[in-house]
Amino acid sequence: MIDLAKRVHDHTWKIDPVVRSLLDTDFYKLLMCQTVQKRHPDVRVTFSLINRSAHVPLADLISEQELREQLDHVRTLRLTRGEITWLRGNTFYGKQRMFTPEFIEWFRTFRMPEYRLERVGDQYELTFEGPWAEVMLWEVPALAILMELRSRAVLRRLGKLDLQVLYARAMTRVWEKIQALKDLPDLRISDFGTRRRHGFLWQNWCVQAMIEGLGQCFTGTSNCLIALRREVEAIGTNAHELPMVYAALANSDADLAAAPYQVLENWQKDYDGNLLIILPDTYGTKSFLARAPAWMTYWTGIRIDSGDPATGAQTAIDWWTANGQDPTRKLVIFSDGLDVDKIEELYARFHGRVKLAFGWGTLLTNDFRGLGPDDGLAPFSLVCKAVSANGRPTVKLSDNVGKAMGPPDQIARYKRVFGMESQSDEALIV
Amino acid sequence: MIDLAKRVHDHTWKIDPVVRSLLDTDFYKLLMCQTVQKRHPDVRVTFSLINRSAHVPLADLISEQELREQLDHVRTLRLTRGEITWLRGNTFYGKQRMFTPEFIEWFRTFRMPEYRLERVGDQYELTFEGPWAEVMLWEVPALAILMELRSRAVLRRLGKLDLQVLYARAMTRVWEKIQALKDLPDLRISDFGTRRRHGFLWQNWCVQAMIEGLGQCFTGTSNCLIALRREVEAIGTNAHELPMVYAALANSDADLAAAPYQVLENWQKDYDGNLLIILPDTYGTKSFLARAPAWMTYWTGIRIDSGDPATGAQTAIDWWTANGQDPTRKLVIFSDGLDVDKIEELYARFHGRVKLAFGWGTLLTNDFRGLGPDDGLAPFSLVCKAVSANGRPTVKLSDNVGKAMGPPDQIARYKRVFGMESQSDEALIV
Repeated sequence: MIDLAKRVHDHTWKIDPVVRSLLDTDFYKLLMCQTVQKRHPDVRVTFSLINRSAHVPLADLISEQELREQLDHVRTLRLTRGEITWLRGNTFYGKQRMFTPEFIEWFRTFRMPEYRLERVGDQYELTFEGPWAEVMLWEVPALAILMELRSRAVLRRLGKLDLQVLYARAMTRVWEKIQALKDLPDLRISDFGTRRRHGFLWQNWCVQAMIEGLGQCFTGTSNCLIALRREVEAIGTNAHELPMVYAALANSDADLAAAPYQVLENWQKDYDGNLLIILPDTYGTKSFLARAPAWMTYWTGIRIDSGDPATGAQTAIDWWTANGQDPTRKLVIFSDGLDVDKIEELYARFHGRVKLAFGWGTLLTNDFRGLGPDDGLAPFSLVCKAVSANGRPTVKLSDNVGKAMGPPDQIARYKRVFGMESQSDEALIV
Repeated sequence: MIDLAKRVHDHTWKIDPVVRSLLDTDFYKLLMCQTVQKRHPDVRVTFSLINRSAHVPLADLISEQELREQLDHVRTLRLTRGEITWLRGNTFYGKQRMFTPEFIEWFRTFRMPEYRLERVGDQYELTFEGPWAEVMLWEVPALAILMELRSRAVLRRLGKLDLQVLYARAMTRVWEKIQALKDLPDLRISDFGTRRRHGFLWQNWCVQAMIEGLGQCFTGTSNCLIALRREVEAIGTNAHELPMVYAALANSDADLAAAPYQVLENWQKDYDGNLLIILPDTYGTKSFLARAPAWMTYWTGIRIDSGDPATGAQTAIDWWTANGQDPTRKLVIFSDGLDVDKIEELYARFHGRVKLAFGWGTLLTNDFRGLGPDDGLAPFSLVCKAVSANGRPTVKLSDNVGKAMGPPDQIARYKRVFGMESQSDEALIV
């Protein structure tokens, strides 16, 4: 039977919002936000959209009005009563009350700050400027909006049955990947695919598939809203923006060299246990570990997010061993450009030697390669990064030359200060 | 488009469960359960179904197998992760952490205890026996199951369009009631209709209508699951079972006379603020208030649940005034057999003289009077009560002769001990 009231009510929707909740973001953003809001309330930053895939003409695909409507919609969002309840009452890695009453009170009335949008050629310049704790929360929704509007633009060309077959194929692909992963005993894998997902409903379906297909081997999702709705663990720790902003704020080369360690020193005061994960690659993993203070060897694990992942993991194992730590009790999290083949390879190589975890991102939630017209649904490399802090440019080197960013003179300075010898040149898919 | 997977998956449902969550119950049951679980872990009680409406032949309408399947299903339920999060993180009347970690831990692994079911003539004997904290949680789901199975039995006779028109009429009726209530400024009204609802989905719809129609005047629902899902306040305080069990356990007439006050003395140690609501009528409101200790006059309010409600409210006002309390700062909650006309009448009489609140039950969530074939959907008077505690019979007198229960000799004894002079004879609708 037709529900007349619903049909007519639905007419009143002006847009179909991509992001419908402030919790439709990565859990680690909230962890970082809490620490930033407490420790650095006066730091101002600029985040900026960077499309590393110049062949995807975002401004031709997505109209400015459509993009503004979606961004404006996010600025109308507030946490709901149920979302606040979840933040307050949930356990994260078994720990209760991860968020302080002060942070929840701040977040309760939070609304997203302004944005600046300009079309330049076939791309958009999209920037966010303001207090760090506010601006940082734009990164994930801004990316998710652009990714989904691009999907919608391409999908508009398809008929009803085309769409049905397209999604049937995509679902088959995800499900076959998950079936392959079932062959890896004790696998621990989670969804890290919020920012560059095909769309919200698709990510939500992928998580459902992971839950049904992998059972206890699926450890959770980085997406807070999906974690809330599907009652699974919210997953995440911290990101490059912390060392990048700390480094930009350093007043001397000595302070600069110390900045990435200062990040972790503060972090371990705010969090513990499974959140003590080192992200070593911002200015080169090798030198970072070589110069690390002794207390860092006691941390729970390390996240490998650029460079050749096997090399990164081996570097970490060597470092732990050299420092008298037992690598089999340490956690290595792989999170860079993973797909099933790479997961299988890394699993075969390191299973039993360390505790392993995989954060599966874009190729879980956006593997539409070869499925859309003119391959127009293939994922591409879009990021949104802190480009300056208190007026000074930020720099990222990473273990992959394609991911470096910042002004050339500053890149040279950072390379010198951090003793950065070589960078790998991994093909950049996402 | 047809979702083939969903259609086929749905074939595997064996029953359509009436109660799908341990939180599909009244909030005050959990408040009472927490205090019972802590203070009286060794008390054993028997709860028993009582159909006061003998003309509704439940055992003719509902098959024993169907009833057993629904009761058995409730025994498979566990709290979900999200439900535990809600209990832990929600605020109730603005207070955080209403439930202790100890209670949540107990409830986390809780499953409903056994039941005993027997057909006797055209009725069912349904009893629950065991530890008080466990057995008490059967009351609301047992009633909701019987009410909804009765609805289903009657609805089975109707065709698709008949059903559509039936619900259109019922919705119109609820919506017109809500429109009438909009004329009462500052009204405070909540849904107390879980136990004798037409069905879960219908109650859920009624709450939605209250939210949309009354806005801030709708203060919440007693149903925890609906409060969670709709992100509204869970409402409730305590019920007759506390004084009834305390009284049954009393070893002397002096202890018996003191029992109802002992309930409240314990209650105010466990809770405060808006939960300090006196329920005075178990053994007669007048004598209860006349003999009340001084500290009770400081409580937040009173709930009028039997007898003539205007008389009950006036008795409370007189009592507060006589004890130097300002009635305009006290809360009177009406919760017995309310419908719009009675609400309007009580509002007109007491608005401005006390703070008013209304707990609207069966005639909100089950007003199908005159709508079903042979009026077979009209609500009826079904209760599930503690009938004994540690082997001794319980007694309830109330301010309404039709609600009295217990063995005749004990009723006589209670009347003597509590100085119960007269009972009103309100027509018993629900």
